Amino acid sequence: MKLKKLVLTGAAGRLGSYLREPLAAMCDELVSTDLVDDIGTLYAGERYAKADLASYDQIFPLLEGADMVIHFGAIVDEKPFEELLGPNFIGSYNIWEAAHQHGVRRVVYASSIHAVGMHKKADFIGIDAPHKPDTFYGLAKCFTEDLGSMYWDKRQLESVHLRILSAAQVNNSRALGSWLSYDDLIQLVTRAIDTPSVGFAVIYGVSNNDRCPVDNAKASFLGYRPKDNAEEFAEKVLAEEGPVDITDPGQMCHGGPFAKVDLGQSGLAQMNVVDDKKTT
Amino acid sequence: MKLKKLVLTGAAGRLGSYLREPLAAMCDELVSTDLVDDIGTLYAGERYAKADLASYDQIFPLLEGADMVIHFGAIVDEKPFEELLGPNFIGSYNIWEAAHQHGVRRVVYASSIHAVGMHKKADFIGIDAPHKPDTFYGLAKCFTEDLGSMYWDKRQLESVHLRILSAAQVNNSRALGSWLSYDDLIQLVTRAIDTPSVGFAVIYGVSNNDRCPVDNAKASFLGYRPKDNAEEFAEKVLAEEGPVDITDPGQMCHGGPFAKVDLGQSGLAQMNVVDDKKTT
Amino acid sequence: MKLKKLVLTGAAGRLGSYLREPLAAMCDELVSTDLVDDIGTLYAGERYAKADLASYDQIFPLLEGADMVIHFGAIVDEKPFEELLGPNFIGSYNIWEAAHQHGVRRVVYASSIHAVGMHKKADFIGIDAPHKPDTFYGLAKCFTEDLGSMYWDKRQLESVHLRILSAAQVNNSRALGSWLSYDDLIQLVTRAIDTPSVGFAVIYGVSNNDRCPVDNAKASFLGYRPKDNAEEFAEKVLAEEGPVDITDPGQMCHGGPFAKVDLGQSGLAQMNVVDDKKTT
Amino acid sequence: MKLKKLVLTGAAGRLGSYLREPLAAMCDELVSTDLVDDIGTLYAGERYAKADLASYDQIFPLLEGADMVIHFGAIVDEKPFEELLGPNFIGSYNIWEAAHQHGVRRVVYASSIHAVGMHKKADFIGIDAPHKPDTFYGLAKCFTEDLGSMYWDKRQLESVHLRILSAAQVNNSRALGSWLSYDDLIQLVTRAIDTPSVGFAVIYGVSNNDRCPVDNAKASFLGYRPKDNAEEFAEKVLAEEGPVDITDPGQMCHGGPFAKVDLGQSGLAQMNVVDDKKTT
Amino acid sequence: MKLKKLVLTGAAGRLGSYLREPLAAMCDELVSTDLVDDIGTLYAGERYAKADLASYDQIFPLLEGADMVIHFGAIVDEKPFEELLGPNFIGSYNIWEAAHQHGVRRVVYASSIHAVGMHKKADFIGIDAPHKPDTFYGLAKCFTEDLGSMYWDKRQLESVHLRILSAAQVNNSRALGSWLSYDDLIQLVTRAIDTPSVGFAVIYGVSNNDRCPVDNAKASFLGYRPKDNAEEFAEKVLAEEGPVDITDPGQMCHGGPFAKVDLGQSGLAQMNVVDDKKTT
Amino acid sequence: MKLKKLVLTGAAGRLGSYLREPLAAMCDELVSTDLVDDIGTLYAGERYAKADLASYDQIFPLLEGADMVIHFGAIVDEKPFEELLGPNFIGSYNIWEAAHQHGVRRVVYASSIHAVGMHKKADFIGIDAPHKPDTFYGLAKCFTEDLGSMYWDKRQLESVHLRILSAAQVNNSRALGSWLSYDDLIQLVTRAIDTPSVGFAVIYGVSNNDRCPVDNAKASFLGYRPKDNAEEFAEKVLAEEGPVDITDPGQMCHGGPFAKVDLGQSGLAQMNVVDDKKTT
Repeated sequence: MKLKKLVLTGAAGRLGSYLREPLAAMCDELVSTDLVDDIGTLYAGERYAKADLASYDQIFPLLEGADMVIHFGAIVDEKPFEELLGPNFIGSYNIWEAAHQHGVRRVVYASSIHAVGMHKKADFIGIDAPHKPDTFYGLAKCFTEDLGSMYWDKRQLESVHLRILSAAQVNNSRALGSWLSYDDLIQLVTRAIDTPSVGFAVIYGVSNNDRCPVDNAKASFLGYRPKDNAEEFAEKVLAEEGPVDITDPGQMCHGGPFAKVDLGQSGLAQMNVVDDKKTT
Repeated sequence: MKLKKLVLTGAAGRLGSYLREPLAAMCDELVSTDLVDDIGTLYAGERYAKADLASYDQIFPLLEGADMVIHFGAIVDEKPFEELLGPNFIGSYNIWEAAHQHGVRRVVYASSIHAVGMHKKADFIGIDAPHKPDTFYGLAKCFTEDLGSMYWDKRQLESVHLRILSAAQVNNSRALGSWLSYDDLIQLVTRAIDTPSVGFAVIYGVSNNDRCPVDNAKASFLGYRPKDNAEEFAEKVLAEEGPVDITDPGQMCHGGPFAKVDLGQSGLAQMNVVDDKKTT
Repeated sequence: MKLKKLVLTGAAGRLGSYLREPLAAMCDELVSTDLVDDIGTLYAGERYAKADLASYDQIFPLLEGADMVIHFGAIVDEKPFEELLGPNFIGSYNIWEAAHQHGVRRVVYASSIHAVGMHKKADFIGIDAPHKPDTFYGLAKCFTEDLGSMYWDKRQLESVHLRILSAAQVNNSRALGSWLSYDDLIQLVTRAIDTPSVGFAVIYGVSNNDRCPVDNAKASFLGYRPKDNAEEFAEKVLAEEGPVDITDPGQMCHGGPFAKVDLGQSGLAQMNVVDDKKTT
Repeated sequence: MKLKKLVLTGAAGRLGSYLREPLAAMCDELVSTDLVDDIGTLYAGERYAKADLASYDQIFPLLEGADMVIHFGAIVDEKPFEELLGPNFIGSYNIWEAAHQHGVRRVVYASSIHAVGMHKKADFIGIDAPHKPDTFYGLAKCFTEDLGSMYWDKRQLESVHLRILSAAQVNNSRALGSWLSYDDLIQLVTRAIDTPSVGFAVIYGVSNNDRCPVDNAKASFLGYRPKDNAEEFAEKVLAEEGPVDITDPGQMCHGGPFAKVDLGQSGLAQMNVVDDKKTT
Repeated sequence: MKLKKLVLTGAAGRLGSYLREPLAAMCDELVSTDLVDDIGTLYAGERYAKADLASYDQIFPLLEGADMVIHFGAIVDEKPFEELLGPNFIGSYNIWEAAHQHGVRRVVYASSIHAVGMHKKADFIGIDAPHKPDTFYGLAKCFTEDLGSMYWDKRQLESVHLRILSAAQVNNSRALGSWLSYDDLIQLVTRAIDTPSVGFAVIYGVSNNDRCPVDNAKASFLGYRPKDNAEEFAEKVLAEEGPVDITDPGQMCHGGPFAKVDLGQSGLAQMNVVDDKKTT
Repeated sequence: MKLKKLVLTGAAGRLGSYLREPLAAMCDELVSTDLVDDIGTLYAGERYAKADLASYDQIFPLLEGADMVIHFGAIVDEKPFEELLGPNFIGSYNIWEAAHQHGVRRVVYASSIHAVGMHKKADFIGIDAPHKPDTFYGLAKCFTEDLGSMYWDKRQLESVHLRILSAAQVNNSRALGSWLSYDDLIQLVTRAIDTPSVGFAVIYGVSNNDRCPVDNAKASFLGYRPKDNAEEFAEKVLAEEGPVDITDPGQMCHGGPFAKVDLGQSGLAQMNVVDDKKTT
């Protein structure tokens, strides 16, 4: 069954950019959207539309006739609540409400480990661990997951929430466990789309790393089986990294540096790590 | 230990009104606040200040020097997301952020069963059941609980989240299980205040009803032991109520009528039930 | 809401006899049935009909127009499988199938601890413990519970399964924990009838004994709160009972003497205990 | 250790036919039995005996001197209770009772996912999930598992219950998760036989499918490690299958089409799927 | 059934002193033992024998012919490991080994919350929470519980381990949850003795306090139902106690001051609290 | 990051001998210690020091300046408590206390399945299963794990407890599940050392055996992924082993022969199996 229309938000972001080609291949029409004016050469069947997630009026028309929305658009850093409110909170509402109004069947959402980032790594958390956000960024993920749960229970709008651990380069010991390779990301998004019936589902986005600290067992029916393994980088990374502070939340918690950053402060510069994905 | 200053939001609401007197007796100064111009005769030590929860500038000065905030202010009905965004979502952020800025020690929050309202009654849910909101109203409770969790983990601001089941008159069979009497409400709020150390805590607000469908075991250290029991109304209520539709989510789910209401639609008129509490 | 018609099976048995009067008071018409020719003086609204549970043709007409069936009829002792097959296995099927054909709303069933009798007492089993029958008698209870689960899931026929521990006189130490008084039995059956919506529910039938070894927490919504306590008999019973064999399954398992009896052998004579309830 | 004698029931059925050869190789004597007159050419050491499972007298002599019974005989479709009572319910009793009388050590039983078919796929059920049958066919599996539990606890007769998901061709999306290949079936039966000590054990019979929706972790000691993976059929199957009804129990529940079929109605014709295994 | 002989260790200690009278009344002969020369006037049937727990030769003869040992003897303060090794570790071994050699049936042991003292109060721990000792004193309790488990599994010597929370005066907020009254202590010990069959059992020793932070549900079969409630002291205690340090392990953990004390340092003087019980 | 100094106890034992070479390669200086006079040719950077674990004075100086201790020294057989007290109990205390005094960062400890050996194999126990020792040997492992937990909680001394199942040759059916190959042992110890932050961790030491009966899921963050599989020995081992006694604790329990051996009796001769590891 080939899909008629897909919508991808955050199409200019780091992860979104990678998804354009495989998504275009799965459907007759891919509508890619982001805040930039232009995303370069389009793939066959792809159309680009600039739109602000925080504006229902801009988002609404894009979803008309779509089968599914792949919602990767958001500010991808810790910021003050006021800055995240529009794109990360209201933006999610706009996507789900517009999807419902248009009879869209499913939303596939880039959630994040930061929705549960204050759990300890030694707690091998499953997909049903209670929310425990580490930042306002993570709080927006919690909000969206709960929103998705409600739209399924009340309006039968399906959603799959991909709690991505870290999709950046493996250059620190945390990433030995948390890495999600691009190939595995694409498999994960593909499964979230091609599984016939999903209801409301949550799944961790992480590769088949030896040191993977989270448990996807309860999402088994989705059939996600990652192939890559960050252990190939272990020797180099561990050799370069000095002893850690064993009582540092950034070491002990799933959220890593976000578990330690001050709320509302940008986490990127200070941590020298590009977390997750990026809209611009 | 007598407290110096408490702040009560939603002081003109149904539940807030009942709390003013006991709260005034626990502290040197009680600042009551709501949207109305006037809340009538004040208790000894009480001061009234009109303020809009959605405005950080109006809320911020009220919390100066406070030991704790008793946060009961909100729109208390299901409404479109846009209407709840200011008072119920941003309002919570304003309270926690202002509390943090002023070094307030603890927030006691009127959460609701509607944060988990789509769970089935036959599932005797504990305080750690995953969020499963039944309405935008419930979604705001989820958001605030997660916010409270984060401010504790990152900033050591304590909070107790009282998931009130129903504080209205017992005039239907659901209320035989969900009723919270005023005396028990006052005990509950008192425990949430006088327990020396609480961290981030969640507890159901429900009386000692024979048919109580939720489990407070994991909040035992708070010492809440309700005294009232809705069973005294059972014979009358059951005699008047006709057979129910056994497949109705309103019957089977913890959220009761909110589990059935359309998202964004007022639940009060149609259900002939005054749920929870009211700011105006 | 007064019920129009109830059907009671096993009406001549020990427990059934006690239920006739309170059941007659709850409905316009009570049809009592058993294998005997006559059950003596009838209560107001009561009618007696002799019928064999193992015969669908005899059972079918009795259920016409009934709101609920209170199914207490069965052979109440351990017997060879062949003897229990008719009344205890096929009899249950006949009740559920006839109830479905007539649009009866609910079956209240006298299940038994013997459905889970091989669990250890030191395992404080809840209502969702896996089946672990101790006898063919208990196996028939497992069968009927699974049958009830299926008729609810597939045909929306509700049922409440009362796993009675022991309703006999308190004359041994096991009964200090397992006793169900007649008053509590009546409360239990009343709750199973008057709760507006039950789906498929299981609950232990046991009084408020200090030494109660099972957990009804997950059936809380049914509102069963027993009042009697076998501890009043403890001093006498313990004084008379000699030291026990601490490795005896009859001591260590919930099923008591049934946990020890040979399969298919009568448990009553040898154990000097009248377990549960009796049809004749 | 080579076994002296094995008995295989349902030897003419689809799965039974595949087991004859490997079973014959494991023992000195294999007694194959079914309802047909003849099962064709026999393997070395194999003997065929026609017998009706519903008849204790026909079954009893076959088990004399046997080490184990491989019990795959049954009607393998949903049928009215009356039709299944003989072969699927009483047949199981006959096998266990005869095995006990002859001192047979272990029964390996073809149970089915339909014993728990009304659980949702999104619930990654383990081997200890409570029974939740979807059909009378599934109810017979529940009955037999409970029977096996009891014979182990009371009489030390071991049994392994293989809850086969689906052993038919992979021609629909459900089978991408539920497929059990013939090679994996043989491995599974072999492990159930060669594990030195099993007590009462339950295990899902499913291949190493990416989309496998059930959890065998608690049966790990049996050492079953399936090799085949239905994902090789995914592209073709998903391309051919149209959009599904996402609220259909047949989509959401483990039992698949049996979760939707009317009780007592044949599931095969209407569903165009040959489920499980077949005696004739 | 009256017991022939009981042995009480730690008979001169604070808790031991209270137990002498009720224990003497339960048996023909009570042998009380401790390190002191004399414990004053003896009760009817009581005999005093000075003995050092650390000496097998001194302990061995005392247990001859005993039905049960009530083992309350130990150093009752945090001390360096070397000081506790004799009485608290080796002493326990001596008791169990001598009991086994004499065919004693059961040991009732004064364990302590300090075996699990580093768990957080907000974790409502049950009797099966993993060990998490807060001191060497607590480590000795862990050791003894594991020893008792092993003697039951391997030698069928029963034991009940009473994890006493705090048996001192209620003069701080922790004790509002942790208090064990003397009457409840006596009930607890009585149940540990008169329950016919216990195997290896663990139970918290705590009164029916509103703020009780631990869960005895899984020990329900023992029938311990405490009557006293420290809440009567709450108003006074809370009024006198100033604000606490909410990040102090002594506040957040079950072990209270022991959760904070340096290992091997006496906890009594510094904390102004007499914990648990005392031998001299 | 190369380590400066490691200390290996039990260096002359069977497992210790295998660890000397890889450990020497990980650090500038390896101090190997045991009771023997000489351990033969030393590896580059290795130094041998004879010392008795039971003597704090002999152990203390060895740990000066060490990063980590690899503690494999102990008597490796079941013996009377008195014989194990020095090396296996006091020895562990000496290691942890000396490590603390010297500011050593982590202890990696050879614990054993015998700390939980009385659990049943059919219970797929995780790393958080309650202690259930099968021997005094196992009791010393329980003691040391609890000690390690306490030193982490109170003094931030990290430890990893490797519960080795069996590291001997695969010559019986139990070992098909419990085998730990030498290569996997080395991987396990390496992970326990190179993981940047571990707190207090427990993990089973077992290869990737098809029949592996324990669950390491909750230790996933350590990244241990065994490569070897005892199934290659299955055909031969099973062919040679006769029928087992299915009610023998040695068959049913994780501890194997230790689950059956008399307490304090040597398990080696009688069982013809060299369990775990050996100091001399």
